[in-house]
Amino acid sequence: MGTTSKPGIKIVTIGGGSSYTPELMEGFIKRYDELPIREIWLVDVEEGREKVETVGAMAQRMWKAAGHDVEIHVTLDRREALPGADFVTTQFRVGFLYARIKDERIPLAHGMLGQETNGAGGMFKAFRTIPVIGQIIDDMRELCPEAWLINFTNPSGMVTEAAIKRFGWKRTVGLCNIPVISMMKEPALIGRDPEELTWRFAGLNHFHWHKVYDQTGADITQELIDHVNDPDGPFPANIFSAAFPIDLLHSMGLMPCGYHRYYYMADEMLGHCVDDFKINDTRAEHVKEVEDELFALYRDPNLDHKPPQLAERGGAYYSDAACECISAIYNDKHEHMVVSTENRGAISELDPTSIVEVSSIISAKGAEPIAWGKMPVAERGWLQLMKAMEELTIEAALTGDYGVALQAFTINPVVAKNPEARAVLNQLLLAHERYLPQFADAIQELKDAGERVTDPVVLKLMAEGK
Amino acid sequence: MGTTSKPGIKIVTIGGGSSYTPELMEGFIKRYDELPIREIWLVDVEEGREKVETVGAMAQRMWKAAGHDVEIHVTLDRREALPGADFVTTQFRVGFLYARIKDERIPLAHGMLGQETNGAGGMFKAFRTIPVIGQIIDDMRELCPEAWLINFTNPSGMVTEAAIKRFGWKRTVGLCNIPVISMMKEPALIGRDPEELTWRFAGLNHFHWHKVYDQTGADITQELIDHVNDPDGPFPANIFSAAFPIDLLHSMGLMPCGYHRYYYMADEMLGHCVDDFKINDTRAEHVKEVEDELFALYRDPNLDHKPPQLAERGGAYYSDAACECISAIYNDKHEHMVVSTENRGAISELDPTSIVEVSSIISAKGAEPIAWGKMPVAERGWLQLMKAMEELTIEAALTGDYGVALQAFTINPVVAKNPEARAVLNQLLLAHERYLPQFADAIQELKDAGERVTDPVVLKLMAEGK
Amino acid sequence: MGTTSKPGIKIVTIGGGSSYTPELMEGFIKRYDELPIREIWLVDVEEGREKVETVGAMAQRMWKAAGHDVEIHVTLDRREALPGADFVTTQFRVGFLYARIKDERIPLAHGMLGQETNGAGGMFKAFRTIPVIGQIIDDMRELCPEAWLINFTNPSGMVTEAAIKRFGWKRTVGLCNIPVISMMKEPALIGRDPEELTWRFAGLNHFHWHKVYDQTGADITQELIDHVNDPDGPFPANIFSAAFPIDLLHSMGLMPCGYHRYYYMADEMLGHCVDDFKINDTRAEHVKEVEDELFALYRDPNLDHKPPQLAERGGAYYSDAACECISAIYNDKHEHMVVSTENRGAISELDPTSIVEVSSIISAKGAEPIAWGKMPVAERGWLQLMKAMEELTIEAALTGDYGVALQAFTINPVVAKNPEARAVLNQLLLAHERYLPQFADAIQELKDAGERVTDPVVLKLMAEGK
Amino acid sequence: MGTTSKPGIKIVTIGGGSSYTPELMEGFIKRYDELPIREIWLVDVEEGREKVETVGAMAQRMWKAAGHDVEIHVTLDRREALPGADFVTTQFRVGFLYARIKDERIPLAHGMLGQETNGAGGMFKAFRTIPVIGQIIDDMRELCPEAWLINFTNPSGMVTEAAIKRFGWKRTVGLCNIPVISMMKEPALIGRDPEELTWRFAGLNHFHWHKVYDQTGADITQELIDHVNDPDGPFPANIFSAAFPIDLLHSMGLMPCGYHRYYYMADEMLGHCVDDFKINDTRAEHVKEVEDELFALYRDPNLDHKPPQLAERGGAYYSDAACECISAIYNDKHEHMVVSTENRGAISELDPTSIVEVSSIISAKGAEPIAWGKMPVAERGWLQLMKAMEELTIEAALTGDYGVALQAFTINPVVAKNPEARAVLNQLLLAHERYLPQFADAIQELKDAGERVTDPVVLKLMAEGK
Repeated sequence: MGTTSKPGIKIVTIGGGSSYTPELMEGFIKRYDELPIREIWLVDVEEGREKVETVGAMAQRMWKAAGHDVEIHVTLDRREALPGADFVTTQFRVGFLYARIKDERIPLAHGMLGQETNGAGGMFKAFRTIPVIGQIIDDMRELCPEAWLINFTNPSGMVTEAAIKRFGWKRTVGLCNIPVISMMKEPALIGRDPEELTWRFAGLNHFHWHKVYDQTGADITQELIDHVNDPDGPFPANIFSAAFPIDLLHSMGLMPCGYHRYYYMADEMLGHCVDDFKINDTRAEHVKEVEDELFALYRDPNLDHKPPQLAERGGAYYSDAACECISAIYNDKHEHMVVSTENRGAISELDPTSIVEVSSIISAKGAEPIAWGKMPVAERGWLQLMKAMEELTIEAALTGDYGVALQAFTINPVVAKNPEARAVLNQLLLAHERYLPQFADAIQELKDAGERVTDPVVLKLMAEGK
Repeated sequence: MGTTSKPGIKIVTIGGGSSYTPELMEGFIKRYDELPIREIWLVDVEEGREKVETVGAMAQRMWKAAGHDVEIHVTLDRREALPGADFVTTQFRVGFLYARIKDERIPLAHGMLGQETNGAGGMFKAFRTIPVIGQIIDDMRELCPEAWLINFTNPSGMVTEAAIKRFGWKRTVGLCNIPVISMMKEPALIGRDPEELTWRFAGLNHFHWHKVYDQTGADITQELIDHVNDPDGPFPANIFSAAFPIDLLHSMGLMPCGYHRYYYMADEMLGHCVDDFKINDTRAEHVKEVEDELFALYRDPNLDHKPPQLAERGGAYYSDAACECISAIYNDKHEHMVVSTENRGAISELDPTSIVEVSSIISAKGAEPIAWGKMPVAERGWLQLMKAMEELTIEAALTGDYGVALQAFTINPVVAKNPEARAVLNQLLLAHERYLPQFADAIQELKDAGERVTDPVVLKLMAEGK
Repeated sequence: MGTTSKPGIKIVTIGGGSSYTPELMEGFIKRYDELPIREIWLVDVEEGREKVETVGAMAQRMWKAAGHDVEIHVTLDRREALPGADFVTTQFRVGFLYARIKDERIPLAHGMLGQETNGAGGMFKAFRTIPVIGQIIDDMRELCPEAWLINFTNPSGMVTEAAIKRFGWKRTVGLCNIPVISMMKEPALIGRDPEELTWRFAGLNHFHWHKVYDQTGADITQELIDHVNDPDGPFPANIFSAAFPIDLLHSMGLMPCGYHRYYYMADEMLGHCVDDFKINDTRAEHVKEVEDELFALYRDPNLDHKPPQLAERGGAYYSDAACECISAIYNDKHEHMVVSTENRGAISELDPTSIVEVSSIISAKGAEPIAWGKMPVAERGWLQLMKAMEELTIEAALTGDYGVALQAFTINPVVAKNPEARAVLNQLLLAHERYLPQFADAIQELKDAGERVTDPVVLKLMAEGK
Repeated sequence: MGTTSKPGIKIVTIGGGSSYTPELMEGFIKRYDELPIREIWLVDVEEGREKVETVGAMAQRMWKAAGHDVEIHVTLDRREALPGADFVTTQFRVGFLYARIKDERIPLAHGMLGQETNGAGGMFKAFRTIPVIGQIIDDMRELCPEAWLINFTNPSGMVTEAAIKRFGWKRTVGLCNIPVISMMKEPALIGRDPEELTWRFAGLNHFHWHKVYDQTGADITQELIDHVNDPDGPFPANIFSAAFPIDLLHSMGLMPCGYHRYYYMADEMLGHCVDDFKINDTRAEHVKEVEDELFALYRDPNLDHKPPQLAERGGAYYSDAACECISAIYNDKHEHMVVSTENRGAISELDPTSIVEVSSIISAKGAEPIAWGKMPVAERGWLQLMKAMEELTIEAALTGDYGVALQAFTINPVVAKNPEARAVLNQLLLAHERYLPQFADAIQELKDAGERVTDPVVLKLMAEGK
């Protein structure tokens, strides 16, 4: 593993100033016996200096409390951190949570879902993030050519597709906490022990389905579907719990993921989000508040363990999944995990080179998908549409082509409404100008035509230079 | 051609009482030199007796006026008409225009597009029509096993897919007037003669795109796109003319079809339709009035030619396309037409056995598609989704499976809204009970649960036994 | 697992009189702790009565010596054995080794490889076997609808494809000993422990390639290729060891299987086989002698363990692989094995419904292939050809269509030579008439045309009613 | 068409010194009314100076005799000829017929078919030709970017695939005379007029099948199959007429091409070729004699028309097909021709981007294939194998990779025999060293290892610097 001379593993975390970092530390600490970490580098940008320094100090306290001699390095220079890295994890957010607030408010102001992964917001997150992933990979190619890239920056599927297909970094694994949560919560719903059950997932990030089997090989998905709307259901807590139509799921014979609510119950979900928007309490604004509270805690020089409040943040288990994936690679575990990786035919109706989120075996070779075979008709159609949307979004992110971005908006089922879709596209371009150099020409045209951002909260953020 | 002993061609028209029949007659009359028709059978059902007799008498007058000795037979018994038929054309409407009124009003009452081909209405038209097509084919297999089935009953693509893939009648060609209208109107828009231009279409019925080339082989589609919103544009007159976003089309590099407005400008189109609905002037209701006026004309014993008012009916050129297709088959013309036929790889991202609407060569062998190759990304994704929707709709039409119908509704982009989609499905099932024997169990469950049709116009029709 | 009332597993072995049965017993005995077997039924046909009774008695002695209370039942009536079976294993040989002698001698007499799996012999083995598999599955559907079919009757890939695709028995796993032998012998060749290595196989039965990885995920296939021609190489002992061209393998980057020698070094292998044939020492004749010796041993009432001579029989580890597969299913082990199973996209250039031999995870759900992805160009082309040959062979086996059989012969690269191929086809049809009722018409035509078997050894067998 | 200022078409013919040029001239002369040619440039290399000057003078006499003012230019500098060209035709032979003699003799000396298109000879022709095509396209990109490349240099399919897929020149059409000959000869075999019949071809160059239909759309291929071995059969005269097995063809339901004899009756064809080889009368040596005779005629200053002896040359109608193709493009004819072009899904089991030889519509847009759909199983498998062989051959031609060349030899069914295949590969590399700079390293290794050309005829040619 790697080419380092000193023994032990070197981890570099891009976006090290994230509030999730303590969870990541906790995950490494509890796996120290199997994952002998030598040093961890937390990398962030100038605007995030205070956050990364706060988190870095807290991370060092955690390791000290755990009794392990692991050095935490904090840097604003990625190239200083990367040489000799074994694993690079990416959890950065270009433009911070301010950008997410824009991503959510602007669509909602136009009566459109402001969903930050698959919706218009997620597409803009892709526009901002993908070019940076390309730069990171350029540096890795030079400075740590053997390293694995463990991505959990959203939209994780598109970022992973860009990393593998467009930037050619095959040693990339994309992670998400959604399948982890399903596998943690579902056994209790049907009164089973986790070790009795086997899960098989297939689809795209935030757009996958799964089946569950017991130890006799029986498909017990239908049994689980009856519990899909249970109060302590198998979905992340941060999505409004509109009830799934049980008979539809029984007809499909597949468990959905929580994000499918934005598609199956689009209007109900939209109504709820618009209500939140009207009281300036979008998910983004809520998360910003939670994050501020977390950092207040992290600044406490006596805090040396992950505070319980972090679990409410929404991305619970994300970091733990990352640690487990790193261990599975390092220790050649051949362990089942659900990750974003190259399809290789596992979903036979998508291109073998597309990135999908699918049950895989994780070993020193990386992720190997388990062949799922043919999808049912409806899911096949939906996946093919969503993959086209992802490809167009990535293309627009790489080229800054306004027409391609408009095509991507037009086929995305949670965006497509017109004429509002164009208005949202234009507003988001203007609002995110600073982080979208590839779209400079298109943005200038919009400005020349007199278009201006209208949402007052977004305008205020822009006035503050955020 | 065929097995008849007497010379000349025998045509059987199912749904012979349609107001379009005079156009069909006109088409045959003007092609009499190349299409030596011997006899024409107009078949309809008991409820349509008065209409088919009126139209039959008018058709006989038209042939007499043209000076040809062609017999028109009118019958309510399909099996009497079919023996020895060379061509069977299908233009029937199960439940008449009353059914279309239900198809449009019920979705609109729930704030959803009531589009009668691809929307919820079109799906129910498929539910009503496909089983009947199966029965017709059963009879053809026995009574005229060499005959061609020329379908122009909507939804033409799904009906053709059912006929070829599910009922196994390979000698089927599905027709639509939309491509014909494009090819008639577009030359004038860019100041060209029709014979200078070549068109290539690919997609699904009411969901296809095309490219246009000049005599040097140059792709002049972009030039044409600039005229897409011209007052005398290349689309049928019966669709509200919401303006296409020109820059989106330029980015795609493809001409859309008129029905794409329901997808690209979904909200604007919906708003317009809801407005019409509110004054009880849906397209269906409007067409019903036009039809009543036409039949008043047809009853005139002196009328012996197609009246000009028919052109306003909306389906102009449909029948002429049918006559031309029949002639191309009969005379082995190897002529370019755009028809619904087996894909055979022409659109490489759809299954080779799927039915697509695509530029084809029409000869005595039927339709042979011209290979289009790869679709651009957005169109690929969209087509794959729509084909999945079509497959589910056909499956539901054949099985009466409520869950499959719900799946079809859920993935159809102009239907998918929830919870309204289920309400619309339920209301339409109840409203069309008479023509949906395959859904009897599901409808009974709805009734047992106390669901009732609520739209007053639909209730009135039902009370009148329509 | 299963529907039996008495605890423990019921095994039914079709072709129970095989000389391999003691190995199967040994495999079950050594796994008794994890595989609690209740009863074993050995089924054979009338002609095999003496053999199955001999083996049955020996099997009972083996269980007794092991100290387990497992009943061995011997029957000539399959339907008596099947009710309540949990696992049905198939290891029968229609026509016994006499048929194999014909399969090998006749092609060799015409200067063509007499290979008993992929060659002309193997195709005739498929013709004889596949209809019988269909009958077994008919009985299973009625008598033990939950049972797993573990097939190790050759040609294992084609038999498995027929069972799953044509007869619809999804609970089928096809086994072969070739991958097992590779995984047993290769570590020593490169001085590694087996547990350090991971294997990934993909291809068709007797026509697959593999890659090997170490614990760091490094592909060490090239290192292994250097040892492919080592004296104790990774191939079964029963194939003549023509040396592989090392540079070709390095260029491919894949390890071949031993049977690839018949393709890569076709002429050299043919020369060797012809030499053996000339001295009446074909592989089949040799195996017949070994079998006779084994049965002489089995008749010894004091023998209660597998004799070492069985290992020389050629199919070593076949039965052990079967026991391990049964245990992996019964105990939901999620264990890596290389089996013939439904492709599901694992080899993306073959149809998802084709049966392939591929690295799979074996659990209570059966076999799930690990997605291999795209094959290199040469292997892709070869696999696609061989799969077409397999499909044609199965089609001919099911229909008895002479033309289809001739097509299968014509595209099989180790058969295709003309005009000899037709002569071999005709001779084999005549020689196997008794076991090919589906080809009765074709055989009668040959006889009417005066064709007669010419090989003296085959004629002698036929005269003896074999 | 094109950017030339002077009216009329400019043709550039690479390999202008070919003995076929007079046929090309004749084709242009007879189409002068529809193809207003302005000037023709015959380009050749220094070694071909005498030939191209002879042919150029003869060509000029032909145009003069026809009474048209068309200038013939002869040059040894391709870049002088190309500027402003409308059509570039390629009919050159790297290494002249001497190279073909080597291509045929060396394999035959090793008991292997010396076929000059698909066999080992054809693969070496690809190795020599493809790099030169790449250079021509480089020049065209600079000097005549709008020109069409009409290739009839063999192996036409591989050369066209390289031109379109590897060098990116989409405006390429690959031609062959085999389909033309079929369509000319077949009507008479079954007593029909050509205009009554429709042909549909699909496959690869020199490896395609076809179906024939009459004016009622009936498939009359089976009728034609009965005449496949007729004395005046539908195949080129230059292939030995081993009889096709009629029952195999009836089972397939497809007409083969003449070159299929090398696959269906491989041994018989090989035997015949070996006989010719033994008397130093390979096809190549025979053609060389014919060519020498033709040039003797061409030197006659009174000869001003195509001499009848040219028809015996073997490639009859090749040039006429080229003229017709040029006319169909220039005049936007939308005419049926069988050409090598991008698949685009026409054969759905081959990649949409592969080059196939298929019934197409030729217009100003180039070739558009008619969708053929699914191939029967045997043909599917064979085509997939042969396409893999073509891809490997092209890859080897571009890279000079010995291992890839060996892979290509190993999967080619008319080459694969080992160990002879390697010997033939090595001998051909040595014999063609002068024209294979990309293989310089591999050839040097062979020489260092002491390998030498052994065939005396080839050695003599090499000694003469040929």
